[in-house]
Amino acid sequence: MPKRSPRASSPKSKPHSPAEGRRFLLGIDLGATKVVALLLDERGRIVRRSGRFTHSNDGPEGVISTVVRAVRVCVPEGAPPPRSAGIAVAAQVDPRTGMVGHAPNLRWRNVPLGPRLARSLGFPVRVYNDARAATYAEWTRGAGAGCADVFCLVIGTGVGGSAVVGGRLLDGGTHAAGEVGHIPIVSGGRRCTCPGSGCFEAYVGGWAIAERAQEAVREHPGSGTALIQTAGGLESIRAVHVFAAARGGDPLALRLVAETERYLEDGAVGVVNAFNPTRLVLAGGVFAGQPKLVRVVARAVKARCQPPAAVVRVVRARFGEDAPAVGAAALAGRPAGRR
Amino acid sequence: MPKRSPRASSPKSKPHSPAEGRRFLLGIDLGATKVVALLLDERGRIVRRSGRFTHSNDGPEGVISTVVRAVRVCVPEGAPPPRSAGIAVAAQVDPRTGMVGHAPNLRWRNVPLGPRLARSLGFPVRVYNDARAATYAEWTRGAGAGCADVFCLVIGTGVGGSAVVGGRLLDGGTHAAGEVGHIPIVSGGRRCTCPGSGCFEAYVGGWAIAERAQEAVREHPGSGTALIQTAGGLESIRAVHVFAAARGGDPLALRLVAETERYLEDGAVGVVNAFNPTRLVLAGGVFAGQPKLVRVVARAVKARCQPPAAVVRVVRARFGEDAPAVGAAALAGRPAGRR
Repeated sequence: MPKRSPRASSPKSKPHSPAEGRRFLLGIDLGATKVVALLLDERGRIVRRSGRFTHSNDGPEGVISTVVRAVRVCVPEGAPPPRSAGIAVAAQVDPRTGMVGHAPNLRWRNVPLGPRLARSLGFPVRVYNDARAATYAEWTRGAGAGCADVFCLVIGTGVGGSAVVGGRLLDGGTHAAGEVGHIPIVSGGRRCTCPGSGCFEAYVGGWAIAERAQEAVREHPGSGTALIQTAGGLESIRAVHVFAAARGGDPLALRLVAETERYLEDGAVGVVNAFNPTRLVLAGGVFAGQPKLVRVVARAVKARCQPPAAVVRVVRARFGEDAPAVGAAALAGRPAGRR
Repeated sequence: MPKRSPRASSPKSKPHSPAEGRRFLLGIDLGATKVVALLLDERGRIVRRSGRFTHSNDGPEGVISTVVRAVRVCVPEGAPPPRSAGIAVAAQVDPRTGMVGHAPNLRWRNVPLGPRLARSLGFPVRVYNDARAATYAEWTRGAGAGCADVFCLVIGTGVGGSAVVGGRLLDGGTHAAGEVGHIPIVSGGRRCTCPGSGCFEAYVGGWAIAERAQEAVREHPGSGTALIQTAGGLESIRAVHVFAAARGGDPLALRLVAETERYLEDGAVGVVNAFNPTRLVLAGGVFAGQPKLVRVVARAVKARCQPPAAVVRVVRARFGEDAPAVGAAALAGRPAGRR
């Protein structure tokens, strides 16, 4: 084993022996533009963070080298390897082989991410879908703890999700179960990033809120002044500006938020009727920025779901942005029999 | 044990000893207006049918006595009890207690159907949701056989479904998983029989096709002649008349069928993206009467689902109307450990 470099240090900056390294779990979150690595202790507490690394999304080579750089902040070269390591990717992945099959955001097809990372890092890295990893984190130690039937709905730039049913995290026939962002909620509706149309994501995903707002401003230029000012230009309008302008009382933004709430209700009602969770965990940037939406969803599922399904409890995610990395670390650290 | 009555006879009319009764499985299907009982041999072949009994849906007492009469055709009073018995009900049920919780079609709430039937029949009867039972039949010995990830979509008067994911039939937090008929597919759309609106069922369920057709005829009386003639009156128009008039080339019926197909596509795409089955089994009266719809769904999921999910194979159910009773018998006959 190579010598530890002078920069290598254990979590909390105390030096540790190779044996101590075995106590830590490594979790990585690989998104469309960012990489974050975390080191967790045996009780699941985060003891080190890489900070946010950005990658240029220019193909597997560059992205993987950014992942390695992020990991090296937590597990320096030559330091003892972690007890286990997992990476969460916004992609369809095969957790058994570490292969990323279909990753629209990264524009990857069939990249053997697990084996490639293992070669670069010198220890095995298991690969998971990010929504599934986040759900595992919330289910085992977050807002879904103690519950055998949990759905974790993630609304960020895109819309994803994952289900625990009867105490088991669903994987699906091709590792794609829970992709509720692509349930059509408006027949014949808006074009999506997927081959479908009218999808839940095409109305409430961050990109879709932005797109709807820009269209509305183009159609009603007179009403868009507040939105354009908030964003610094029509093309710069993002979901966050819509919510900010609505808080300021702008009528167009208020209308856009009201419409978004209605679509969010439709999607959440469908998810609850379809998967029948007793806890619905709401995660992702849109809920983080708009905690009021949790109440909107709670009210809607109570009023609009089938009576047996309407008993679901609606809660905010606990782990926020850390959920995918925490979940990937926890999944990788499971006893082999539970994989 | 009381003597067998002269009318009691074994399957295929050969007399059998009490020991032989143990070889047979009893399956019952309790619908909104009908009861059917079946006796299956140890290889799953149907060896006796009760024929179709109708009940007046006037509360548990009358319905249960109709169930007992149907069962007595297959297992006469005094004959040896079946090895196991199961009843499929269009309801939310708790399979552990035999309690029917919520049965909108029967207008029941909290009826202890399993214990009540056991008392009347003299042998235990396990209780299952009908879509889940039908799915179990198709999965274990029908169109989903050999596949670990199956969704069975049942489109009859109502729309139901049930999922097998990773080789396990999903139950859900309150025994209501798979109720995809109540996924909203038209935001702000048609009123449903459930508390929601815009539901999949409210567009493609048999009752909804009939309702949409009657509305269309009322709005365009001049175009409705063929439909009214086929049905024998506006109020009598049912889904079957719409499909019949469309086959005859009637423009209004053709438009209604085309719209139904589009809604069916939306719902099926949502189901496949959400549950990621590798086989989608299409069951229920609407598909039985319109085999062409299987191709419509197959084409839509291929074209519109996310690429990982689009690999699903779309097939027609094998058991047709027998599926719930066959599945209930098979579920009840499982080794205890698999319940």
